[in-house]
Amino acid sequence: MLASSILRRQKFLVRSLGVSHNPVRMDQKAEIRFAALGTDAESVIRKITPTYDPNRYKGQAGKIAVIGGCREYTGAPYFASISALKIGADLSHVFCTKDAATVIKSYSPELIVHPVLEESYSVREDEKASVCQKVLTEVTKWMERFDCLVVGPGLGRDPFLLGCVTEIMKNARQSNIPIVIDGDGLFLITENLDLVRGYPLAALTPNVNEYKRLVQKVLDCEVDDHDRYAQLFSLAQRIGGVTILRKGMCDLISDGETVEMVSNFGSPRRCGGQGDILSGSVAVFSSWARQQRSITTKHSNDSPQNPMVLGCIAGSTLLRKAASLAFKDKKRATLTTDIIECLGRR
Amino acid sequence: MLASSILRRQKFLVRSLGVSHNPVRMDQKAEIRFAALGTDAESVIRKITPTYDPNRYKGQAGKIAVIGGCREYTGAPYFASISALKIGADLSHVFCTKDAATVIKSYSPELIVHPVLEESYSVREDEKASVCQKVLTEVTKWMERFDCLVVGPGLGRDPFLLGCVTEIMKNARQSNIPIVIDGDGLFLITENLDLVRGYPLAALTPNVNEYKRLVQKVLDCEVDDHDRYAQLFSLAQRIGGVTILRKGMCDLISDGETVEMVSNFGSPRRCGGQGDILSGSVAVFSSWARQQRSITTKHSNDSPQNPMVLGCIAGSTLLRKAASLAFKDKKRATLTTDIIECLGRR
Repeated sequence: MLASSILRRQKFLVRSLGVSHNPVRMDQKAEIRFAALGTDAESVIRKITPTYDPNRYKGQAGKIAVIGGCREYTGAPYFASISALKIGADLSHVFCTKDAATVIKSYSPELIVHPVLEESYSVREDEKASVCQKVLTEVTKWMERFDCLVVGPGLGRDPFLLGCVTEIMKNARQSNIPIVIDGDGLFLITENLDLVRGYPLAALTPNVNEYKRLVQKVLDCEVDDHDRYAQLFSLAQRIGGVTILRKGMCDLISDGETVEMVSNFGSPRRCGGQGDILSGSVAVFSSWARQQRSITTKHSNDSPQNPMVLGCIAGSTLLRKAASLAFKDKKRATLTTDIIECLGRR
Repeated sequence: MLASSILRRQKFLVRSLGVSHNPVRMDQKAEIRFAALGTDAESVIRKITPTYDPNRYKGQAGKIAVIGGCREYTGAPYFASISALKIGADLSHVFCTKDAATVIKSYSPELIVHPVLEESYSVREDEKASVCQKVLTEVTKWMERFDCLVVGPGLGRDPFLLGCVTEIMKNARQSNIPIVIDGDGLFLITENLDLVRGYPLAALTPNVNEYKRLVQKVLDCEVDDHDRYAQLFSLAQRIGGVTILRKGMCDLISDGETVEMVSNFGSPRRCGGQGDILSGSVAVFSSWARQQRSITTKHSNDSPQNPMVLGCIAGSTLLRKAASLAFKDKKRATLTTDIIECLGRR
């Protein structure tokens, strides 16, 4: 067990992406190849972002759908979906409950909001199966059009709603649609790992607590920060090669093949909603990386291939840059909306 | 058939309107008279825009109504109706479903929003005839006041709602009100061409897919890009002289008499909603062109007469200019709202 753990640690690469390009300081015990990228983190964004082409038509730069938004939460799905548009997607949909839809629509006319989800309080016991089927039909008729789903922002934990979302995720996976999972979507998959196990087009974006629950559930141990690269690597491997972006002071990203680190300076402000910007961003960037996979392969001797990993690197890097620009301007008064306004700034 | 096709192609004019005034490159087979306008595209806007006159009162610069907005879509009718105001109309109405009305009202206090349409889910089978009659009464009591209708932005495809809109269109046509048709309005008329056949005050503004469906339905063939001017010309003729604005990298406009091309540079951003700006713009400009028809006739040896064609040229030109200004400022983060903000800029 110990030997295989060391072997595993020896196998993986840790890349440091940041303005400073500081090499990652590693536990002395671990013999880990450190491969500094020849380019900085922002070059990943440049590499995967499609070039402008006047021949392209609406939809070709990305169609994203956020599954989330319930009676309690409306801001999170808005932040995720509007961020996708600000980064450069052409169309951004939200699938949420009726209560949430009116509010999310009123935040912005740019979003297409479908009031199709239901929570337990609005469904009788004997109707549940038929309502779930109806929800699934409503969502799946759109499914093939999407380049990526974001499951979780403002989803809540209503058991009936999560049951429907489980079916939506199974359907997306059958259709080979990438899925970024955050917030209560992580609660859902932590309870039912088979939803994502072995699906290379899944990206999980846990914060401290969500990561802790994942580690406990999958590795049956506590988070070990002295061994954090190896632990993340093992976690991604054990879920069958899904991509995990562990959010923190530095963001760590692994798909069980390499470990990447994004450490460029962001902002000390921790206002709620930044995770939603990240999930929307990862969705767009990983869609672009998937589109450009052929180009990527040509240049990629020293950079990762996995579009979900590239999407996580780009999303993390852009959020940090936007947060830093917003903080420079608004300081402690910085809100998530201010950061979104900076997503397009140089 | 071949001879008549060549004859048809010989008959029509292709005019190129653009900053660069490049002549249209034509298929060598086709012998087409090329008539470059003596003015550039922006001069069409100047020619049809009414001069300021302190004697004029509210409403004289245009009263526009958008028919659209349902449970699913609220952004599109907002974009169309607010664009009409930003271009210079005095009053902009929206006729939509109850669900959509609250949201559209909340986007802007500038709009007059009528919650009068109904979708199948809210109407019992035995009520349908009376509800449809009620909807028609509610809309037609306003009809005579409008200078132009825009049918389609965010209309959706609910069969009952489309049935009511069919009646509204028949009524508008009886009252000689111009109608700009976009989005799901095009779905409606493609299924029922008699709604617009032979109506010279109809303008259709199809995108790639909507154009494809129209060509298949009317000409019973596929879109032929090598022969696109002649095909558009035939299509407009076959629907009895309606004006068609085929959206694309260059916008092509025909009423079965001439083919016009607007090719000034816009923006490579294809975010959803730009088509709605266009439909609102065409509505205002064609109303103005209709008002000024007597003036137009005096100057117009080398320019088209049809107010719907002039409206399409002006709408297309202004949208491209606004999109280019917005893109210059916001780059890839440009949203439709940013373009609307630039509609009034020089």
